[in-house]
Amino acid sequence: MELAQIGATLKGGVRRLALTCLDGQGRDLVVGWLKETGSRVEIDGAGNIFATRPGRDPAARVVLTGSHIDTQPSGGKFDGNYGVLAGLEVLRTLNDAGIATEHPVAVAIWTNEEGSRFVPVMGGSGAFAGVHTLEHLLQQRDVDGIAFGDALKDIGYAGDAPVGGRALDAYFEAHIEQGPILEREDKIVGVVTGALGLCWYDCIWTGQDAHAGPTPMEARRDALRGASRMVEATHALAMRHLPDGRATVGFMQVSPNSRNVVPGLVKMTIDMRHPSDEHLATMDCELRDAAAVIARDLRLECDLQQVDHFPASRFDSSCVAAVRAATRALGLPHREMVSGAGHDAIYIARVAPTSMIFVPCKDGISHNEIEDARPEHLEAGANVLLHAILTRALGSRVASDSSGTEGG
Amino acid sequence: MELAQIGATLKGGVRRLALTCLDGQGRDLVVGWLKETGSRVEIDGAGNIFATRPGRDPAARVVLTGSHIDTQPSGGKFDGNYGVLAGLEVLRTLNDAGIATEHPVAVAIWTNEEGSRFVPVMGGSGAFAGVHTLEHLLQQRDVDGIAFGDALKDIGYAGDAPVGGRALDAYFEAHIEQGPILEREDKIVGVVTGALGLCWYDCIWTGQDAHAGPTPMEARRDALRGASRMVEATHALAMRHLPDGRATVGFMQVSPNSRNVVPGLVKMTIDMRHPSDEHLATMDCELRDAAAVIARDLRLECDLQQVDHFPASRFDSSCVAAVRAATRALGLPHREMVSGAGHDAIYIARVAPTSMIFVPCKDGISHNEIEDARPEHLEAGANVLLHAILTRALGSRVASDSSGTEGG
Repeated sequence: MELAQIGATLKGGVRRLALTCLDGQGRDLVVGWLKETGSRVEIDGAGNIFATRPGRDPAARVVLTGSHIDTQPSGGKFDGNYGVLAGLEVLRTLNDAGIATEHPVAVAIWTNEEGSRFVPVMGGSGAFAGVHTLEHLLQQRDVDGIAFGDALKDIGYAGDAPVGGRALDAYFEAHIEQGPILEREDKIVGVVTGALGLCWYDCIWTGQDAHAGPTPMEARRDALRGASRMVEATHALAMRHLPDGRATVGFMQVSPNSRNVVPGLVKMTIDMRHPSDEHLATMDCELRDAAAVIARDLRLECDLQQVDHFPASRFDSSCVAAVRAATRALGLPHREMVSGAGHDAIYIARVAPTSMIFVPCKDGISHNEIEDARPEHLEAGANVLLHAILTRALGSRVASDSSGTEGG
Repeated sequence: MELAQIGATLKGGVRRLALTCLDGQGRDLVVGWLKETGSRVEIDGAGNIFATRPGRDPAARVVLTGSHIDTQPSGGKFDGNYGVLAGLEVLRTLNDAGIATEHPVAVAIWTNEEGSRFVPVMGGSGAFAGVHTLEHLLQQRDVDGIAFGDALKDIGYAGDAPVGGRALDAYFEAHIEQGPILEREDKIVGVVTGALGLCWYDCIWTGQDAHAGPTPMEARRDALRGASRMVEATHALAMRHLPDGRATVGFMQVSPNSRNVVPGLVKMTIDMRHPSDEHLATMDCELRDAAAVIARDLRLECDLQQVDHFPASRFDSSCVAAVRAATRALGLPHREMVSGAGHDAIYIARVAPTSMIFVPCKDGISHNEIEDARPEHLEAGANVLLHAILTRALGSRVASDSSGTEGG
């Protein structure tokens, strides 16, 4: 709640865009808290922050947790911030309980996860995982032409630690679900086994502008009719790939967008997701077929381009098992689930054994100022995080105990 | 072509918005030409221009023609301008042929027909016909906050003649069709018998923003699906009222309009037209029913409001007969038709016997820089205008001749 004061909006949300002055203030606050735990804080060249609590074995790989504290333009208090603060709470609890771990335990704050100010999304974790280069990241500019690298320097978070290359034993990320499933099923913890694959498309329908009065219906080439049918076709397509298929038209721009002109041009986007890459490939074919049929029926041109693609990811089975075991040990109602959204964990999974812990959010709403979550759910998720981390960090003795719990 | 140089665009069109400096230059040019015919030019308080060629009977009612010379932001050379210049050509021809008419013959240039810079559309002719008051008109402001009245003074066309109250014998307006019917049927003249009735609606669909990834299909309340179905329902509705029914969704605005967010809010407009007010009333009911069904099916709220309504208009049968007779006498391929678009003539018809003459435009395209028309068609329309005006202006002797032609 104290962090959420920085960039607080009138409607109870937060606007703290990546690498703004407010982001700098938020970082300073959380870094201060992390330092108070006695952790060593390092900043890398992408502005990613790592606060490390040493382990008994200096050579042991780090057990890492974390998330991000940048927000959407009209974001909430919990998205990302929860994962970082849950990590902070783990460090404090290890101190309070006087627990010495074999492995170092660290908390990461990844830069620019939201992608609202700078593309690419998950910028810091993507650079860490080698998905894009640091140079690429630093050159990105916001709508005002300010470079990522300059903004990073301005807030004092252009660090000198190398980006990536850290030896990680595991990465766990706690996050609000950002969907309604846990709440609807009265579960407190989502044991996240992977993430949906994702295809993004740009789609342009071209017909002919015409005056809405004198132009007979049969003489029209109405681009908005094409786009509207595509919305329905996109929905129908997802319904053929239930329960996990998703398809969304989130963006549409009509031209000339005048009350009495038949639209000659419509641009739209399509977002399709599925946990199986084979299904996603089938959905891609079905989408292209649907576009072709609509274009022919309505005498329109349709330009459909895939502009981005993330394959489905499956989290590390031992990390998933650690989360599952911790959840069971704590007696929390839970279900296994696949993340529909993008998270830093999806990139980190490319370079380290990874899994995630979801907790419910009110009405499944996120990326919105009314985003909310219940303290007891947040506490439960943090406890699962603590125990999952301990499973990896305590060393071989407790790891085998944990396997026992898992089998129970 | 000379007038079209004023505000000429790179793509061959014209941008000469009402009461701009360019509109002032256009008016000066055409007023100069009208004065060269010996006509007496008057300007009224709405900036409407009247150039009158006296008749033999000073007490006889005026036979008026005209249209507008303001354009759309990306308009063409012919929309409106043709009707004014065809009127100019009639005055010149009467002079050249030394014809003395019983009635005065006058050419009007109506202010702000397009409604692109100031609402209401057909502003000058509407004030003339008493549809709205002069005060209302003068108070309107453009997007920069400039008042209609101030803009009118700035270009020197705030006249002192009273708005309306002129004794008119008839009003004829020549115009490009702005639709594809004449061209498709290889006709040169449209004998316009009336205008479609028109209903304008604003429609707002409200669902719930949701993240496109984590939100299962069945949990969504996607406002864009409602709007898209409404586009198809609107089209289907028009198809049930062919051949003259029209229905168009020209405007749509999606919120938050982000690639990975299920839209929670969509605003759209609907434009419905029909030559029969009874049909239009039926279409109104069908539209409301369709909205209610879609809203219920998709668990959305739909706010559908009628924001404007023009009843269907039927032009004066004697004026239509004069146009029909002139067209036949000249041996021109023609058809009777109903205007789908709004025109100054539709307002003037409320205060004077009125009809219109349509000529083809290329591919039926108007309100577009590529708007085009063939010289021989424009000439043919101007000849029909001349003979229709003569039918009314020469006096009783020729009027009865004309009736004879009409019966032939």
